[in-house]
Amino acid sequence: MLDIAIIGSGPAGLSAAINGVIRNKKVKVFGNSPKSSYLSKAEKIDNYLGMIGVSGEEMIDQFVSHANEMGVEFHSGKVLQIFQMDDYYTLNVDNEFIDTKTIILANGIVNNKSIKGENEFLGKGVSYCATCDGPLYKGKTTVLVGDSEMAEEDVNYLAEVCETVYYIPLYKNFKKVDPRVKIIYDKPVEIEGEKIVKSLQLKDTKLDVDGVFIIKESIPTTQLLNGIEIIDKAIKVNQHMETNLKGVYAAGDCTGRPFQVAKAVGQGTTAALQAVTYLHKNS
Amino acid sequence: MLDIAIIGSGPAGLSAAINGVIRNKKVKVFGNSPKSSYLSKAEKIDNYLGMIGVSGEEMIDQFVSHANEMGVEFHSGKVLQIFQMDDYYTLNVDNEFIDTKTIILANGIVNNKSIKGENEFLGKGVSYCATCDGPLYKGKTTVLVGDSEMAEEDVNYLAEVCETVYYIPLYKNFKKVDPRVKIIYDKPVEIEGEKIVKSLQLKDTKLDVDGVFIIKESIPTTQLLNGIEIIDKAIKVNQHMETNLKGVYAAGDCTGRPFQVAKAVGQGTTAALQAVTYLHKNS
Repeated sequence: MLDIAIIGSGPAGLSAAINGVIRNKKVKVFGNSPKSSYLSKAEKIDNYLGMIGVSGEEMIDQFVSHANEMGVEFHSGKVLQIFQMDDYYTLNVDNEFIDTKTIILANGIVNNKSIKGENEFLGKGVSYCATCDGPLYKGKTTVLVGDSEMAEEDVNYLAEVCETVYYIPLYKNFKKVDPRVKIIYDKPVEIEGEKIVKSLQLKDTKLDVDGVFIIKESIPTTQLLNGIEIIDKAIKVNQHMETNLKGVYAAGDCTGRPFQVAKAVGQGTTAALQAVTYLHKNS
Repeated sequence: MLDIAIIGSGPAGLSAAINGVIRNKKVKVFGNSPKSSYLSKAEKIDNYLGMIGVSGEEMIDQFVSHANEMGVEFHSGKVLQIFQMDDYYTLNVDNEFIDTKTIILANGIVNNKSIKGENEFLGKGVSYCATCDGPLYKGKTTVLVGDSEMAEEDVNYLAEVCETVYYIPLYKNFKKVDPRVKIIYDKPVEIEGEKIVKSLQLKDTKLDVDGVFIIKESIPTTQLLNGIEIIDKAIKVNQHMETNLKGVYAAGDCTGRPFQVAKAVGQGTTAALQAVTYLHKNS
C-alpha cells in the first residue's frame, strides 16, 4: 500500500514527491514523461525564483534530476480510474490495481469535454484503455477516438483483435496506422445505445459499433475520480490543498489559474505536507 | 506613485517582485536585509524543487541575485504604518511618505503580541520610531521597549534628546547602550494614561513617562495596516492571495502554515499576478 500516489509528473507532482520522500513516506509518481508537458516547449523562463533565464527543457531536467536524487519512484503506466474504498483508494493503472492511502492530483490542465453519453456508457461499451479492454471485443466492431499520436498504438492493437476498427483522429499529422483500420475524418457527437453501446453518432454519419474507445492524453478528472468537486473547470481546493474527498489533495494547474511553475511547486509542497499530516493522524 | 509596494524581502517578497517587474510594473521592496531572515540560518534545504542540498544562505544569495538581475529595487527603510486612501495607499517609511496603488504583504511570521494599551495610545505617546518621533520628547522622559539589538541604535538616539531614557530589553546579550540610558530588567504589563501616555506599568515597578517607544524587529500586521483581517494569527487570503482590503495581497509565512520556501515563492507569484490584473482593471 502506497502512502501517497501522485497523479502527474509536472512541477506540482515532482514538488509533492520530493516532500513526501523527505518525510519518509512511500510515494509513487504516475504520469506521462515530464518531458511531454507543455512546459518543455517554453523558450525562456525568468520568473521561478532562483533559476533565471532557463528554457523549459532545462528546468524540467533540473526538476527531474532533483527528484531522482531524492529517490522518487516513477510508474510509467496510465492511471485510468481511481476508486474510493473505505479509508484508502485503489488506482487502476493499465488494469494493474494499486492501493494508496492518499492521493495528490497534479494532472495539469485537462480537457474536460466529454462526448455525450461517455459517462453514461463508461464500462458498458465505453473504455479508456485498448490494452485492457480490447480482448472483450474479439471479432466485434469498435471505434477509437484519439486526440494524439499516443492513441495510434491502441488502435493498431485493436486492429489485431477486432473484426472492424474505425479510427477518428482528433489531431493532425498522424504517423502510422495499421492498414486494416478504417480512418474517418469526422467529429463524435453522441454515444448511443440502450443498456450497452450500439452506435456512435458523428457529425456527418453514424457508426454501428459494439465498443467505443476514447484515448486522450489525459483523462478528465471527474472521470478519473468519481465525486471530486470541480469549480470553473478547476479542482476545488482550500488553502491546505484539500479537495472535498478525504485524503485527496490537488496542486498545480489542475487547481486553476495562474498557470505558473512557482504556484505549482508551492502547492505541491503544501499538498504533500498536508497528506503527511493526514497520514500521521490516521495511522 | 508605485504600482506595487512589497513589504518584506524574503522568498515571497522577492518572488512577487520579479513577477511584478517582468510585467513592467513599478515595484519596490521594503524590508530588512534578506540575509537577516531565519531562512539564512538553515543548514541544508532539499525541498525547493530545482535547488538541491543548498544552505539557507546560498539560497538567499541566489534569490537576491535573481532579483537584482531582473532590476528589482530595494528600499532599506522600515515601513512604520500604511494608510488606506481613496484608491491607493500611503506608506510611512521612517517618516518618508510613499504612495502606492497596491500592496503585497510578505512580512513573514510576526509576533502579534502587543502591550496592553499599545493600540489605544498609538500616536498619543506610543511610537514605533525613535528617529521619527524622538524630537517630540526633547527634555522629557521616555522608555523604550526593544526586542532585538536593532533597538539599541534607537535608544542611544533618545539618550541624546531626552532628559531621562529607560530601556527595557526583551532579549539577551545586548551590545552597546549609551551610559545615560537606565536599563531595567522587567516585563511591560500596561501602558497607562488618560488622553496621553502617563506611565508604563511593569511587572515589578511603574515608570512615569511621557513617551513609550516600542521597537520590534517587525511591526504586527494589524498595527501596520488598520483593518486587515487576521485568522489564527495569519493574514486571511483567498486562493488569489487577496486580503479583505482591495489592492492588498499577502504571500508567504504571513498567510500561515506551512512555513516553506516553495509555498512562499508560489504565493508571491500568484499575489503579483493578481495585483497586475487589479492594476489593469483600475487604470
